Amino acid sequence: MIFIKYEKGQGMKKINAKTLAGFMELTTEKQIVFNQMKSKIEQVFILNGLSPMDTPILEYSDVLLAKAGGDTEKQIYRFKKGDNDVCLRFDLTVPFAKYCAIHQNSLVFPFRRYQIGKVFRGERTQKGRFREFYQCDMDIIADGELTSQTADAECIGVLSQIFEALDVNIIIKISNRKIWKGFFDCHNIEEENQFKILNILDKKGKISDDAMILELNKFSPKFAKQIFEISNIKSLEKLFSLNIKNSVFENGLEELSSVFEILKLLNIKNKVILDLSIIRGLDYYTGIVFEAFLLDTAETISVGGGGKYENLVDNFSNRKLAGVGVSIGLTRLFDILDKNNLLNFKQFTTSKVAILPLGNTLSECYIIADIFRNMNIPTMVLSFDKTFKQKMNYANKIGVQYLMVIGENEINSKTFGLKNMLEGTVFEGSLTEITAKLGKSK
Amino acid sequence: MIFIKYEKGQGMKKINAKTLAGFMELTTEKQIVFNQMKSKIEQVFILNGLSPMDTPILEYSDVLLAKAGGDTEKQIYRFKKGDNDVCLRFDLTVPFAKYCAIHQNSLVFPFRRYQIGKVFRGERTQKGRFREFYQCDMDIIADGELTSQTADAECIGVLSQIFEALDVNIIIKISNRKIWKGFFDCHNIEEENQFKILNILDKKGKISDDAMILELNKFSPKFAKQIFEISNIKSLEKLFSLNIKNSVFENGLEELSSVFEILKLLNIKNKVILDLSIIRGLDYYTGIVFEAFLLDTAETISVGGGGKYENLVDNFSNRKLAGVGVSIGLTRLFDILDKNNLLNFKQFTTSKVAILPLGNTLSECYIIADIFRNMNIPTMVLSFDKTFKQKMNYANKIGVQYLMVIGENEINSKTFGLKNMLEGTVFEGSLTEITAKLGKSK
Repeated sequence: MIFIKYEKGQGMKKINAKTLAGFMELTTEKQIVFNQMKSKIEQVFILNGLSPMDTPILEYSDVLLAKAGGDTEKQIYRFKKGDNDVCLRFDLTVPFAKYCAIHQNSLVFPFRRYQIGKVFRGERTQKGRFREFYQCDMDIIADGELTSQTADAECIGVLSQIFEALDVNIIIKISNRKIWKGFFDCHNIEEENQFKILNILDKKGKISDDAMILELNKFSPKFAKQIFEISNIKSLEKLFSLNIKNSVFENGLEELSSVFEILKLLNIKNKVILDLSIIRGLDYYTGIVFEAFLLDTAETISVGGGGKYENLVDNFSNRKLAGVGVSIGLTRLFDILDKNNLLNFKQFTTSKVAILPLGNTLSECYIIADIFRNMNIPTMVLSFDKTFKQKMNYANKIGVQYLMVIGENEINSKTFGLKNMLEGTVFEGSLTEITAKLGKSK
Repeated sequence: MIFIKYEKGQGMKKINAKTLAGFMELTTEKQIVFNQMKSKIEQVFILNGLSPMDTPILEYSDVLLAKAGGDTEKQIYRFKKGDNDVCLRFDLTVPFAKYCAIHQNSLVFPFRRYQIGKVFRGERTQKGRFREFYQCDMDIIADGELTSQTADAECIGVLSQIFEALDVNIIIKISNRKIWKGFFDCHNIEEENQFKILNILDKKGKISDDAMILELNKFSPKFAKQIFEISNIKSLEKLFSLNIKNSVFENGLEELSSVFEILKLLNIKNKVILDLSIIRGLDYYTGIVFEAFLLDTAETISVGGGGKYENLVDNFSNRKLAGVGVSIGLTRLFDILDKNNLLNFKQFTTSKVAILPLGNTLSECYIIADIFRNMNIPTMVLSFDKTFKQKMNYANKIGVQYLMVIGENEINSKTFGLKNMLEGTVFEGSLTEITAKLGKSK
């Protein structure tokens, strides 16, 4: 045993119980829905044959910051413990890169993994920003290059399946960094300005068209208008018709065509469209990028996305591992859906049934609870020392779906009543009939 | 979007990819088993109608350290971020107490919760000790006192169900702090020495009987032998026959009798015995305490336990909330089972089926994968750009259970082959027959 010594409350001195700002802590009825969402996402990952991964919350600072620079460092929770300079992870990608670098010789490629876990960013708390949040990631990594577009399309497919499982309407917008890279190179726009232009395009929808053209003018007066027009293109045919002769551009166009072809083969129920204003950060992605947006909110809100990168482990190894990944910020997604009243919070318990012993029937109540649990029906016995009325009150308050009061009458007659607490109806029957009814009900 | 700026790998300078000592990071085949264990534990909590809870990894230091003293502070990961003095949580109990103090007026009592999450203790890394580890906790909290022993017994029941679900043989040893408290008070042993004696009793099994009596002699020469004898008592009758006239002792005995009575009503398949040498830490528990020990290892290894406490929130509030809880250290449990060769690692994928497209059948392969996934059968399509032989090799290496090669022959004849990769057998049939077969297989 690892002992932690707990001191007794020092007399009357009480400490103010409070939670750090920017750290989500939910009440039970919301936590139940949050956990359901989390497990639906995990289930989609597993159904797609992705392997689980779990890496530490804490890592060496030089490892975590290998790939991060600039503003990132300010956001990081970094400190010393003994001789170690450590950080809380700020995403699941760098730990994944570290993992792949360590295990590169034993991994079987393509390596397909998912990971769901908390990450930390100590930025200023703003509306909708969290300092601790769950990220749900998947990646498909190749040894060398990913030569076909199946992995890209399958990642978009998983993203789509997840929102279908969550019953959330989205649209997935797809672009390719190579389109811009090719266009910029073709027109000799320097690398520094390329990044600045992408940064402006990333603001699409947040600033007006005029403001955007004005900004683009600063970095490429000659091509500002054309860049703006390309960012509005919604069809591959239009993009082809630009007839830009640049190998990177042409390759990007080919990849986009291929991805849309494969997407047709996948059973995707969400809308998937071309949108060249999708950028997804600045430096990380090198090919296909995609982003999911909510359809049922007034504002345009991004709730996940991903893309292709040329090299996962370049900070750790000379080996080249290309990949494509998806990331969903679950904490933020939950918060947005909650604030837009798109979630239903009904229950304060995971229990489907509460059994209320009346008189000396605790033994039988435990046996019946055991039968239900063996049928995968969550069950609690209201065995605590309160009156019948208080227990009925309790069952009502926690919002349990079904209540069974078991007294000696029920035991003797072998007929039980199953009360549907929402509808107020009572189903009467033998234990077998009750179990069958519970097993069938959602 | 929250952007993290990723810098490109700076030329040739590579960073050594490494993980902090004492932080478990598993390879895929082990991670799969670890996650299965975690989800089995969660399933038992849910089947018993416990509500989920999730609290931050980071908390204000004064909140986390409210209840901790002495050696605890040295173990804590504590640092400053901006103006905040913060800590990584070192258990799930103090955050739970904080939560209950914050929400005390909206909670419905008895409040029954479970929580599974990582906790952090920066102690020296020793054999079997982790600095980051999963704890799996449940608690049942009353508003005021817990007047009956049903909650205690039900907690022991959940502990038992968990190890049954994990298919791990344990014995659960039960004691009551009140037995010792009553005995000590009855013989006017001072409080300081009481703690020291309990600390010695806690070493039972780790030091010899003679060494124990010698140590006990230091703090209570008069009663050392009697204390040692009581610590060996294995039956309630024997304890009754001591005929100690002290209200705390008698109350403790009554509670023990009552717990063992209720345990008889519960369908507990593990061995449950009285063992007064069970102490469970020093200061925290005030009544019934219990601990689970592995039966299939050479050494005596504790793998979880819990007990009753008088007041959860005394450091935060004047309200009295008594409770009983269970805690299992999953990371350590996994490590022990692994080191004792009690776990089986067979698969490097969560996929049950791999579909290998032969020729131009990707579209059909995706459709079939979709059908399988809708039947809850994890499926991957080997769609990547490799040769048939390389794909067969891949399917073998990741240890997928079933392989389906789908060429134009299969599509035209509507007859498919499902290869059991372990047994080398092939089942032939229509898609419906294959789906049924997969649905039935474990």
